Amino acid sequence: MSAWYSSNKRAMKTKDSLANLNTESAKQTLTVNTIRALGIDAIERAQSGHPGIVLGAAVIGHTIFHRFLKFNPVNPSWPDRDRFVLSAGHGSMLLYALLHLTGYDVSLDDLKAFRQFGSKTPGHPEYGLTPGVETTTGPLGQGFANAVGMAIAERYLGALFNAPGFPLVDHRTYVLAGDGDIMEGVCYEAAALAGHLGLGKLTVVYDANDVTIEGALSISSSTDVAGMFRALGWSVCHADGLDSASLINALNEATAQTERPTLVIAKTRIGFGSPSKEGKASSHGSPLGAEEAIKTKAALGYPSEGAFFVPETIKAQALLFKERGEKLERDWQDLFDRYQQAFPKKAGLFKELVEGRLPEDALKNIPTFYPEAGRLSTREASGRVLNALAKHLPTLIGGAADLAPSSMTYMEGMGDFQKENPSGRNIRFGVREHAMGGILNGLALHGGIFPFGGTFLVFSDYMRPAVRLAALMRLSVIYPFSHDSFHVGEDGPTHQPIEHIASLRLIPGLRVIRPADANETARAWSWALRHREGPVALILSRQKLPILKETLKDPQEGLERGGYALLDSEDDAPRIILVATGSEVHLAMLAHLALKEEGVASRVVSMPCLELFLAQPKDYQENVLPSTIKKRIVIEAGVTSGWPKVATDEGVCLTLDRFGVSGNAADIAKSFGFSLERVLQEARRLLNQTSR
Amino acid sequence: MSAWYSSNKRAMKTKDSLANLNTESAKQTLTVNTIRALGIDAIERAQSGHPGIVLGAAVIGHTIFHRFLKFNPVNPSWPDRDRFVLSAGHGSMLLYALLHLTGYDVSLDDLKAFRQFGSKTPGHPEYGLTPGVETTTGPLGQGFANAVGMAIAERYLGALFNAPGFPLVDHRTYVLAGDGDIMEGVCYEAAALAGHLGLGKLTVVYDANDVTIEGALSISSSTDVAGMFRALGWSVCHADGLDSASLINALNEATAQTERPTLVIAKTRIGFGSPSKEGKASSHGSPLGAEEAIKTKAALGYPSEGAFFVPETIKAQALLFKERGEKLERDWQDLFDRYQQAFPKKAGLFKELVEGRLPEDALKNIPTFYPEAGRLSTREASGRVLNALAKHLPTLIGGAADLAPSSMTYMEGMGDFQKENPSGRNIRFGVREHAMGGILNGLALHGGIFPFGGTFLVFSDYMRPAVRLAALMRLSVIYPFSHDSFHVGEDGPTHQPIEHIASLRLIPGLRVIRPADANETARAWSWALRHREGPVALILSRQKLPILKETLKDPQEGLERGGYALLDSEDDAPRIILVATGSEVHLAMLAHLALKEEGVASRVVSMPCLELFLAQPKDYQENVLPSTIKKRIVIEAGVTSGWPKVATDEGVCLTLDRFGVSGNAADIAKSFGFSLERVLQEARRLLNQTSR
Repeated sequence: MSAWYSSNKRAMKTKDSLANLNTESAKQTLTVNTIRALGIDAIERAQSGHPGIVLGAAVIGHTIFHRFLKFNPVNPSWPDRDRFVLSAGHGSMLLYALLHLTGYDVSLDDLKAFRQFGSKTPGHPEYGLTPGVETTTGPLGQGFANAVGMAIAERYLGALFNAPGFPLVDHRTYVLAGDGDIMEGVCYEAAALAGHLGLGKLTVVYDANDVTIEGALSISSSTDVAGMFRALGWSVCHADGLDSASLINALNEATAQTERPTLVIAKTRIGFGSPSKEGKASSHGSPLGAEEAIKTKAALGYPSEGAFFVPETIKAQALLFKERGEKLERDWQDLFDRYQQAFPKKAGLFKELVEGRLPEDALKNIPTFYPEAGRLSTREASGRVLNALAKHLPTLIGGAADLAPSSMTYMEGMGDFQKENPSGRNIRFGVREHAMGGILNGLALHGGIFPFGGTFLVFSDYMRPAVRLAALMRLSVIYPFSHDSFHVGEDGPTHQPIEHIASLRLIPGLRVIRPADANETARAWSWALRHREGPVALILSRQKLPILKETLKDPQEGLERGGYALLDSEDDAPRIILVATGSEVHLAMLAHLALKEEGVASRVVSMPCLELFLAQPKDYQENVLPSTIKKRIVIEAGVTSGWPKVATDEGVCLTLDRFGVSGNAADIAKSFGFSLERVLQEARRLLNQTSR
Repeated sequence: MSAWYSSNKRAMKTKDSLANLNTESAKQTLTVNTIRALGIDAIERAQSGHPGIVLGAAVIGHTIFHRFLKFNPVNPSWPDRDRFVLSAGHGSMLLYALLHLTGYDVSLDDLKAFRQFGSKTPGHPEYGLTPGVETTTGPLGQGFANAVGMAIAERYLGALFNAPGFPLVDHRTYVLAGDGDIMEGVCYEAAALAGHLGLGKLTVVYDANDVTIEGALSISSSTDVAGMFRALGWSVCHADGLDSASLINALNEATAQTERPTLVIAKTRIGFGSPSKEGKASSHGSPLGAEEAIKTKAALGYPSEGAFFVPETIKAQALLFKERGEKLERDWQDLFDRYQQAFPKKAGLFKELVEGRLPEDALKNIPTFYPEAGRLSTREASGRVLNALAKHLPTLIGGAADLAPSSMTYMEGMGDFQKENPSGRNIRFGVREHAMGGILNGLALHGGIFPFGGTFLVFSDYMRPAVRLAALMRLSVIYPFSHDSFHVGEDGPTHQPIEHIASLRLIPGLRVIRPADANETARAWSWALRHREGPVALILSRQKLPILKETLKDPQEGLERGGYALLDSEDDAPRIILVATGSEVHLAMLAHLALKEEGVASRVVSMPCLELFLAQPKDYQENVLPSTIKKRIVIEAGVTSGWPKVATDEGVCLTLDRFGVSGNAADIAKSFGFSLERVLQEARRLLNQTSR
């Protein structure tokens, strides 16, 4: 154990007696120990939680919140607040204690309800549930990537809106990350991009306690974290994470560094103060136990053994933070008022955007596609729509994980977002799908931005944990996923999505739209931008597809209801229904025509979004899929999954429950039974069966 | 452009005329250019493929295969061969050309069939399809992680089997990786672990061409890759990737370095030799075009413009490689024969293991659990079974992504696999789920190892791309995924899997088993170890569950058929069937008893593996789920997904299509309707409906 640590430890434990409260440092120590004590008590009461980080990183949390963070606890959504991200989400009680003590609407009763059903202090921080919680964390590395997205948003919006004398957007992003975050690949990817972009207002404090769940960090890692982050383009400084003065120095250094993001490696002790658990993995994820809790408070010199005790002098601080916060926001509001007079149009746009509203004319440029123009892949249609939208939606920003030319996610003439060009709108994410997912979440969380990010559908798996969090947080993120099926052809099974459409549909709240042609694609973008209740995945074809005159006629409504009758026989009521998505709609239409030749009336239902359709009123569903017509063929180039419900017991699913194969797409389609012959064969079989 | 490059480029392009073939270096250049020409032609013929890497990295591939790699093309599965992994899988034609020229069973006709349906030269290398292909690659970063697994396997097996004078297991692992690999998080995670473990026999050649699909690497990355890898504990050296001599020096240096893995940063030019595409992203993923192909061959000084031309002198090399390979293996076989005499028992075990056979007594220690022992979580049962198995299966190795104590994946007394302890069997993967997945694949691919790796089920998303590849390659990897539902409780929605069981089921070939109690868990392990056709996910509860006397009675068969009647009313035929998995089986049993009280006969079906059940003969399925009984309740604490098919149109699914919540598990269960009342209510409703 280093000398500084031993002496510091002594100091931390003896300084904080109430008698010494006349010194600033004694008050500080008492505040830190109050945070610790609240953590211990809440976790003890819940009989569940993670005391190790609360005890070990309390000084870090305190230093950030009390000495650096710009916030107004009375209005947690003040646009120009600094962002704080607890990437080590299991430290939720540290955050809740900080929020409580700095005047946020998190009461002592809320702390007492920690981890209880229905409380606003859940096991891991949840965005939208607790004031002051900027993002939902817990899955490691995600918060780090979110923070990179927030810092990008700040920089972009600053470039878009700020004017000389008007630093309208000027705030920092702070992260508290642990060993687990640093080990995650998503963190590396995000850090590499942050370094490349030179995000000088991003500061990550790394709570380096050298302990993980399985024991000493040294059993699984020998990484020189400082060396690594320097190699990624970061500024790195070291601090004693148990000493405020040391942290203040480091954070001042970080603030002074405007060219690079800064990693503060703050050495701490997990479970600090716990006589028998300090420095041990055993302090990580279980309550200390009643006896150890009391001993820990005693060891810390905390003035009460009783649960949830907060000294009056500490309580009083909340009011000061509220006053300070209101003043900060008032000053900013004054600035905004002056800005509004100088730049009324921009100010209006700013307000619209930070409130998450779509500017009025944002969608007016969406193109219509005509059959005469020939065949067009839906990825290309998506690219054209995106480019049209970009013109009237200045905070539509995004890109791809090094697949912009293939996923058609580049906005021409909008520049690249780079260190030297913060007003560029195309983000070059690099081959970093997972970080892209986390960063998109950060862009959405920051506010003011309409973020999108694309890759091949098959690689959506790489970013799945981030997509899940977007859905959990109901963030408005759009994913243009291209190359949507075995129709990719020659690239083979590693590049052919099979289970991906279905597995994305399983994520609660994610809307998965697979348009059948260019016009459905345009409508999907329109809907996705207006849908402010969660992420949307657009499932796009690589191969060219006809532009249908039927979708041209159909109003926006069909798409927005998830499924609709695209084509009916003119005279007779349909005897069979062909339900399809994306490129398979065209196969269904061919079958419709062939059946017509055979004198069989059929209906083609385009079902771009199964989840939306199933959420429609029963009568609408009945209208599209009359329960009297149970002879149904569902066609989708992917796994069967939930389709039997649509096909009913009497229908059939032409789907694909095996991996793909390398080869010409037409050969594969034939071999897998995605052919007119097969559809007709199944149709005839169903038509010949007597209905039950 | 650096001086070395310009001079070298000239040299490469003029040296190789047939007239100079008396020098070794001229022959070398001609071989390299033959590889390039074959790549150009095959891609041209397929009208699809990636010429950039074939042209740029041909010298690297040639140097590894012709100068360093120990292999026998006549027997690609010789256990002591060096492994070569093309992590940049889009360079498949580079690999196929190398295999063709070094005597593997990859003919010129095979090259002509590149990327064609049914050929053995698919778009990306596929394990099991092409002799000499050690792993399926394409999704970036995966091959890198596989190679780390292979190097771990080599080291572990060496420690297990080698004896003084008997270096039975003594081979190296080579990787060719590109910029895309290096940017992926999975690569970082795997590299960090490789550095920690000091895998001295692992050499990665990084084809540093500074170009990615979107353009110059510098638009998305400023990473100092050398600095980063040094920080991860690697040895790093630089080479001119277009110059054999430079590469040979670097690879010799790598070979001499036994304490650390080595990264050779080999500067190359993507599309080398192509007059108009060299150094450009346009050479990456599309054929050069007929005219450019001819111009490129001319620029390279290649002796023919004709397609698929291989000079006789180059053809002849294949025979030499075959002779050399057979000699290498013969020498090793001699060594093995002597080993067999000295250590007959170990030699027998070695043979069994490398052939993928389970040693005879491997399963004999699997425990049986008795209801009297009280309640036991299936994760804990899994841990006990694992520990019992470990005793008789010396190459059962694995661990967890820093969750060994929670997922119960630690083998007591078996030591940790560490640099200083290569015979340890517990791998400390660190908080690196994705690398764990890729490494497990590498362990399985290497052969001789029965690998397993666990984490919380919710974090299986982090490793999903690797799980998919395990399924695609049909690798025998076992995933003990614990904390399998909202029953996790307080940790909240970020830690409560909802869609995960279902989404894993969607991956073709992955078997997902959710045992109902300790005995089903034991049988699942037994089946998983014998199942040599693909990966198996074990879905394990955090919470304690009763040990059922019914599973105690049931033979192994029930589990292995995926679903079986666990409990029937003694006298009457069932009027309703309750189908459940995992912890929900106990709820179904409570309902069965309650219904019995009400005079209603019911059947409880435990369905630990839906996929296995659906693969059973129809009469077995009919036996378990008679089609006459359509009143069915399916209970699973996860999304509905494929269950309606089992429930039929007349049944109901008690599932969960929303995210979880933080709180006491019992409160959550009640709120989500996983309660006896709810099951009975649904049962009564169904029973009161007249059958259709």
